[in-house]
Amino acid sequence: MLVDACYTVPLVKVTRGLDDAFADDVVATEEPLEIRLTHGPLTNRQTQNVAVTMRTPGNDAELATGFLFTEGIIQNHEDILAAQHAFIACAENRENVIVVELQPHVVPNLGKADRNFYTTSSCGVCGKSSIGAIRTVSAYHGTHVEDIGIDADILYQLPNTLRHHQEVFDTTGGLHASALFTLSGELLELREDVGRHNALDKLIGASLNSNWLPVTNKVLLLSGRISFELVQKAAMAGISIIAAIGAPSSLAVQLAQEFNITLVGFLRQQRFNIYTAAHRVKTAS
Amino acid sequence: MLVDACYTVPLVKVTRGLDDAFADDVVATEEPLEIRLTHGPLTNRQTQNVAVTMRTPGNDAELATGFLFTEGIIQNHEDILAAQHAFIACAENRENVIVVELQPHVVPNLGKADRNFYTTSSCGVCGKSSIGAIRTVSAYHGTHVEDIGIDADILYQLPNTLRHHQEVFDTTGGLHASALFTLSGELLELREDVGRHNALDKLIGASLNSNWLPVTNKVLLLSGRISFELVQKAAMAGISIIAAIGAPSSLAVQLAQEFNITLVGFLRQQRFNIYTAAHRVKTAS
Repeated sequence: MLVDACYTVPLVKVTRGLDDAFADDVVATEEPLEIRLTHGPLTNRQTQNVAVTMRTPGNDAELATGFLFTEGIIQNHEDILAAQHAFIACAENRENVIVVELQPHVVPNLGKADRNFYTTSSCGVCGKSSIGAIRTVSAYHGTHVEDIGIDADILYQLPNTLRHHQEVFDTTGGLHASALFTLSGELLELREDVGRHNALDKLIGASLNSNWLPVTNKVLLLSGRISFELVQKAAMAGISIIAAIGAPSSLAVQLAQEFNITLVGFLRQQRFNIYTAAHRVKTAS
Repeated sequence: MLVDACYTVPLVKVTRGLDDAFADDVVATEEPLEIRLTHGPLTNRQTQNVAVTMRTPGNDAELATGFLFTEGIIQNHEDILAAQHAFIACAENRENVIVVELQPHVVPNLGKADRNFYTTSSCGVCGKSSIGAIRTVSAYHGTHVEDIGIDADILYQLPNTLRHHQEVFDTTGGLHASALFTLSGELLELREDVGRHNALDKLIGASLNSNWLPVTNKVLLLSGRISFELVQKAAMAGISIIAAIGAPSSLAVQLAQEFNITLVGFLRQQRFNIYTAAHRVKTAS
């Protein structure tokens, strides 16, 4: 599924009471990806570095476009002319630079790129201002959508379905996953990465390509814990139900509350907690 | 242990076959911290923002100084005159800004602050250049130290000791931990955070305060997976044995190899893997 996602290393396996075993095993690949943006009118194109992220190779174009979108730098899939690797003289890094070219008329919102935008509120740095800053840049906050619901019986099944499809995790034990499901529990897309924010950016980049935004009638499943950053990215994509196998943070709960996003945590072993917007989950009682 | 590390939220507990239960429960607190640096001669002091990180409140001064050190912006504990919260008019954010004041004669290496320094190599972006960039800024790479060793029997015990002391994790299920142990398995310091990089920066900040650097005769234990960034921070602090309960990434293994750091992963249930510098682990066979 992921190109170059596994990397073989020699190691010593030590087990109490047994002899040491020398073996080769695979770990998840982690390599830097530099995201460059080319924009401006045809008479005056310019290219600049926007970010470097440590990621697992694979789906790099989705990662780059998803990142640009969730950071508020671009607004639509139609803004993008092309997204492809730059081939640089040094052979080793030819897959580690990706260039996103915008349409000539599109002006990227690069004021956001210098710092994460949750720091730009005039109130200074606090949870409330972080949430406020997102409200101003999210394209979908306040969009009126027909409300949706999901059965608890469907939610219980999602972790097993995710695990069955997480090929690289099975091999390396080292990858985070983000996945989109239908409300009847069918897996639509799954992306993996050593960085949980990258896995979600890849998934949102894929959703941009599929013209799924705003993603109002699907469920986002996260393989780990739920931080503010993940809810922020989901909010940017218009996602209204987030379920996670791990625990949420305080600011993740507050942001979900503010955006009327249903937040489900600790989804494992036939149980879960609903932190916000519980009306979208249909339970037996 | 951590001030304000827990935050109480209302939730619905859903369990297959049982009635829904409405309850209050605690989640790990996540709030932004802005790190500011004051430096320059007494006649011309200046203050600038260096970074914003989403962190769990508590040990903020350690987090800030540890971050400045592991990013290569400051070199020594003696560079620091003071590190304290800034009290700002807006009541809500008074604990979310910390100012580190440097001695008047110290010139911070702020060229590093704009971008992570592993991107600055002339080769462009690749794993090899990322490692090379760290070699140039690590104060302790190549320092001759008496080599150390640890018994496998000691390593097996570390996860249990860590878990017994992880107070907030027990409550919230939501925090990463970094801890330093002696070679005989005694816990010296433990720091927790929603961000694994923050937990390690706090621990290294505490080590700076204790004049433990380079940390050559202790073991670093990480509660989760081992990314490049965590090995980079450990290398900056001169740590020579890293053990983790989770899996390493490819670039974490390569960096540990390059710096002659012993890297142990999957340390759980009386077994572990040694990826690099296995000579420091004394096993039965």
